[in-house]
Amino acid sequence: MIFFDSDYQEGCHPLILKEMEKSNMIQYHGYGDDFYTKEAAKIIREKTSPNADVHLISGGTQTNLIAIKSALRPHEAVISATSGHIEVNETAAVESTGHKILTVDAIDGKIDIEKARDLLENRKNDPRKEHKAKPKMIYISQPTEIGTIYSKKELMDLRKLCDDYGIYLFVDGARLSYALESIKNDVSMKDLYELSDLFYIGGTKCGAMMGEALLIRNDLLKEDFRYHIKQNGAMLAKGRFLGVQFYTLLKDDLYTEIAKKANEYALSIRKAFEDKNIKCIDSYTNQQFFYLTKEMVDKLLEDFSFEYEKEGEYYLSRFCTSWATKEEYVNKLIHKIKEL
Amino acid sequence: MIFFDSDYQEGCHPLILKEMEKSNMIQYHGYGDDFYTKEAAKIIREKTSPNADVHLISGGTQTNLIAIKSALRPHEAVISATSGHIEVNETAAVESTGHKILTVDAIDGKIDIEKARDLLENRKNDPRKEHKAKPKMIYISQPTEIGTIYSKKELMDLRKLCDDYGIYLFVDGARLSYALESIKNDVSMKDLYELSDLFYIGGTKCGAMMGEALLIRNDLLKEDFRYHIKQNGAMLAKGRFLGVQFYTLLKDDLYTEIAKKANEYALSIRKAFEDKNIKCIDSYTNQQFFYLTKEMVDKLLEDFSFEYEKEGEYYLSRFCTSWATKEEYVNKLIHKIKEL
Amino acid sequence: MIFFDSDYQEGCHPLILKEMEKSNMIQYHGYGDDFYTKEAAKIIREKTSPNADVHLISGGTQTNLIAIKSALRPHEAVISATSGHIEVNETAAVESTGHKILTVDAIDGKIDIEKARDLLENRKNDPRKEHKAKPKMIYISQPTEIGTIYSKKELMDLRKLCDDYGIYLFVDGARLSYALESIKNDVSMKDLYELSDLFYIGGTKCGAMMGEALLIRNDLLKEDFRYHIKQNGAMLAKGRFLGVQFYTLLKDDLYTEIAKKANEYALSIRKAFEDKNIKCIDSYTNQQFFYLTKEMVDKLLEDFSFEYEKEGEYYLSRFCTSWATKEEYVNKLIHKIKEL
Amino acid sequence: MIFFDSDYQEGCHPLILKEMEKSNMIQYHGYGDDFYTKEAAKIIREKTSPNADVHLISGGTQTNLIAIKSALRPHEAVISATSGHIEVNETAAVESTGHKILTVDAIDGKIDIEKARDLLENRKNDPRKEHKAKPKMIYISQPTEIGTIYSKKELMDLRKLCDDYGIYLFVDGARLSYALESIKNDVSMKDLYELSDLFYIGGTKCGAMMGEALLIRNDLLKEDFRYHIKQNGAMLAKGRFLGVQFYTLLKDDLYTEIAKKANEYALSIRKAFEDKNIKCIDSYTNQQFFYLTKEMVDKLLEDFSFEYEKEGEYYLSRFCTSWATKEEYVNKLIHKIKEL
Repeated sequence: MIFFDSDYQEGCHPLILKEMEKSNMIQYHGYGDDFYTKEAAKIIREKTSPNADVHLISGGTQTNLIAIKSALRPHEAVISATSGHIEVNETAAVESTGHKILTVDAIDGKIDIEKARDLLENRKNDPRKEHKAKPKMIYISQPTEIGTIYSKKELMDLRKLCDDYGIYLFVDGARLSYALESIKNDVSMKDLYELSDLFYIGGTKCGAMMGEALLIRNDLLKEDFRYHIKQNGAMLAKGRFLGVQFYTLLKDDLYTEIAKKANEYALSIRKAFEDKNIKCIDSYTNQQFFYLTKEMVDKLLEDFSFEYEKEGEYYLSRFCTSWATKEEYVNKLIHKIKEL
Repeated sequence: MIFFDSDYQEGCHPLILKEMEKSNMIQYHGYGDDFYTKEAAKIIREKTSPNADVHLISGGTQTNLIAIKSALRPHEAVISATSGHIEVNETAAVESTGHKILTVDAIDGKIDIEKARDLLENRKNDPRKEHKAKPKMIYISQPTEIGTIYSKKELMDLRKLCDDYGIYLFVDGARLSYALESIKNDVSMKDLYELSDLFYIGGTKCGAMMGEALLIRNDLLKEDFRYHIKQNGAMLAKGRFLGVQFYTLLKDDLYTEIAKKANEYALSIRKAFEDKNIKCIDSYTNQQFFYLTKEMVDKLLEDFSFEYEKEGEYYLSRFCTSWATKEEYVNKLIHKIKEL
Repeated sequence: MIFFDSDYQEGCHPLILKEMEKSNMIQYHGYGDDFYTKEAAKIIREKTSPNADVHLISGGTQTNLIAIKSALRPHEAVISATSGHIEVNETAAVESTGHKILTVDAIDGKIDIEKARDLLENRKNDPRKEHKAKPKMIYISQPTEIGTIYSKKELMDLRKLCDDYGIYLFVDGARLSYALESIKNDVSMKDLYELSDLFYIGGTKCGAMMGEALLIRNDLLKEDFRYHIKQNGAMLAKGRFLGVQFYTLLKDDLYTEIAKKANEYALSIRKAFEDKNIKCIDSYTNQQFFYLTKEMVDKLLEDFSFEYEKEGEYYLSRFCTSWATKEEYVNKLIHKIKEL
Repeated sequence: MIFFDSDYQEGCHPLILKEMEKSNMIQYHGYGDDFYTKEAAKIIREKTSPNADVHLISGGTQTNLIAIKSALRPHEAVISATSGHIEVNETAAVESTGHKILTVDAIDGKIDIEKARDLLENRKNDPRKEHKAKPKMIYISQPTEIGTIYSKKELMDLRKLCDDYGIYLFVDGARLSYALESIKNDVSMKDLYELSDLFYIGGTKCGAMMGEALLIRNDLLKEDFRYHIKQNGAMLAKGRFLGVQFYTLLKDDLYTEIAKKANEYALSIRKAFEDKNIKCIDSYTNQQFFYLTKEMVDKLLEDFSFEYEKEGEYYLSRFCTSWATKEEYVNKLIHKIKEL
């Protein structure tokens, strides 16, 4: 059985383990006050801005909830696509911190900016606005839950929308490397930094063991941020292990190299399905989605593990690649697809 | 400079990294549904009870806040010693989940059981009790913040107290291994399981990279526990890495062996201070506390790093050992102490 | 200018002020331990069940948030119609207590029971259910936000649904009197008690100054309820004033008498609009909704105040009656409608 | 049986009921957009500052929790005396909003300013400060829980302390009228406004039915305040009833006149106890506290109701007066005291 369920089925990139081993007996201060954490932050600032505040946090849901909880006052809400990760897959972590998620429809997995604008405009003009939560942030992910990516133009439009209404833009980059390396991408890490108030460089799903690197651009959101990390239990005593990971992934572009390969494999899988005239979602990153019949799903399940969910008469099925995907796995899958 | 600040200055036990490397390319399901996590849980159940629910969680503050938040209803409070970790060192993580900590004095770092009983009895009889938070849990740590340990008799008394008032007993075992191996200890892991409603086996401070293993005995607290882990961002996608660690530490008693050695080193440091007639806290675990003069602190700081805090005319100074402490470090420190 | 905006434009029923005056100098204990509060609870139990726990709470949003916060554990969510008051008009009060609202579509203002069942069934079978909030309560209001009412059959179906999935049914009765007296109604206060886990008898919008009377049937939800009222600031020191109001409204059926009159006025307004072939919502309670043109709205605004909101090419306009509506007001309005 | 338990045993001042009756049938907009609420706010601004934001809120615990919750970010804490109302008598309402209360000792019921300064200074210099909650507000009440009052000098010192550390000063004035009229008082309403960031004028315990009037001076805390009132369920639909009360109490100094009388009665009770050489707390407001023997308590309980609590060998007993205290009650009590 070969797993294409997600990008976290194997461990982490071997170079990370190697660096951990190499530095294991060196004594460092705890809680992120160590060589690796500082070096990782330095590298990240070089790729974005010398003014970026960089924080390494133990996980994605953690990062989302801390970023949102720390930025919003009690009556403020975050706008997300109906399909957003915080809305759908985090056990109401955001609400558990006291904040409402206001959902708007998605188009190709991306927030419908016109609907977001309507929501903001309506709330602004509502004579009884204090009877409703006040939108103060837009949350998006790059790439989206269905593997699509925002163009630079789209991000600039979102930035403009946020500026028009005085709200924050927060970008969840749990799978950021795959977006950066997508053949359709025109958005750099620096662009993301400049266009958002805060965003993060995903670790877990991009080859790390765990952890995400959050960048804060908006000065208002920088103050006291470490308190929030600690209060929510996301500050590791042995913070060095987060440092080692981002240091290893980012110092020589390992982060993007491995994503590039994963994207290539993903696209070759996509091509195989398309060759069979199977409908797919227009993703150019490591997550590929196909509308399969029950028969196809059953056939593929003989040798492969993947996620699928009934949608109308089809099963929307997800195949993911990662740094760990072997060419051999991909070839076997393509071979099987041809037999469908 | 040699660090005796804490037990998390080095990385993790090398056997953990070895096991991570060994299993790195094996594909497992995410979120704890993997061989290692299951095997670790099995081993833990063998050491305690087949009925124990075992959950691997990414950190100590996380485990404390999730255990408390999931167990208490909104009006319920947790009783802690004034010196308890949740009261003093977790940025109000417990309060951030909506619950008050009711503090009682500590004796030798341990909660004053008579004062706890008085508090419970007073609240029970208070005609206006609904104007105060309702105590529903006692939180202790084994060992305590100052390295002392509860005897089996003391834990049985606490259990009785909790039963008398229908409340939970929660034991924070962030440094559990050092308690288990203390020469003064008469409490087994199984005892802890049986005498508490939930307790955890510390990883981070006992040789792991990160993570704690929570055991739930009370059936009321078992239901839906994984939702709470996820909601608070403590469920790692690559849960296998938590599994590997507890598997490695617990399958052959590595967990306690390394603690035993650390305790021995700690006691030899203590002896060196005592030989100089320096007042110490009566700890038999890996944390040792001494009342030093400013002069002594300065002298020791020439070669060693450690924590200290002014208390009256002295500086209460902490020296910690761990799995990673080298005999050479200890000898150098003892040598220096002799020169004080 | 005559106000038809809502049912809280005037003060409270004069008999309430009279009873307040009459008892004003009598000394009572505070916080609801007084003659009137006890007597009101007794009367309510006579109308429903001797086992009902009755609590007088200072407001509707308060009652909703306390009922929901006290009943749910942190990972649990409440299901509401998209148009539900807690979803739309309470500044995310529910989310501010940590809980997600899961919305389903409404049919005639009433929750679509089949969609609610689908949601519950899907969550139950979801292999990754702990990544989503767990639905544990259905919230409805009787009458609904658009004045429609649930039939006894519909409430029994909802009860069955809740029992099938082991969840609570909570009925917001902020405008309950108008439902009880609707010519289409077949649901008694006793029915509501028996079919829900908790529900409340609205005061503010039904002739009182402020306050709602919450009834708890489910024993699990009764324990320690007064702590929750106090913790959320809804326990008045001079609780007698809540007691006086419900005593006065309920002892001789004043509560329903005044609603009956209000409903009659509402229906005569409806008839006037219908006579002009104006589309309305099929409400038989004190709130009436009409689809008016901009021209009609402007014409009516010359003499009357009411709520309206653009919906497509029309303005959905609300006219409310109450205990305080004068025949003279209604006649003037009908006269004006005829001129449209 | 005559009640001296508290200042909320009778209803409200009759002039309030009279004004309610007079205006009862006038139609006003809801939620505080009415003549009375606006007029009350205007009067309060005249007594303090044209820049004051004034909000009428349904109760004292409500006002405390909303003021604190709205002002603090998640990692921030409020400093209170160990005997503070928010610490002792509000069912952890503050913690339920996510914030820790940091307690310091009280001297004569007033926060020990030196200890508060020590706490602030220690936290500021703590190298691991992010492991602790960050103090951001001082909460006091005027008068205190034991009836003592802060002098203008003491309030100026507290203001200075707050300015030195960049934190807020919040004054709970639940019994403010009694402080204003105390023979020892040198603090005006205007002083309180100018020296605090927010404070409130108590209604419930000062002759109103319910409600408190919060004044916000600090511009940072003014923004969006009505959202917080609504979110926490403290915004009455019939807000006019809060307006009427503060209008009536404040337009002609009824508020302070009735307090003056209550204070006089309180002091004559105190004198009677002092004449019997009974130890008392040095209060010059409407709450008087005496150290009575069990025998005395029993004797007094024959004819009077009051609060008492064992403290060492004595019973600390509280006698309160209010607008409603009759001379006849006081005379009877004094007569009885003489017989002790």
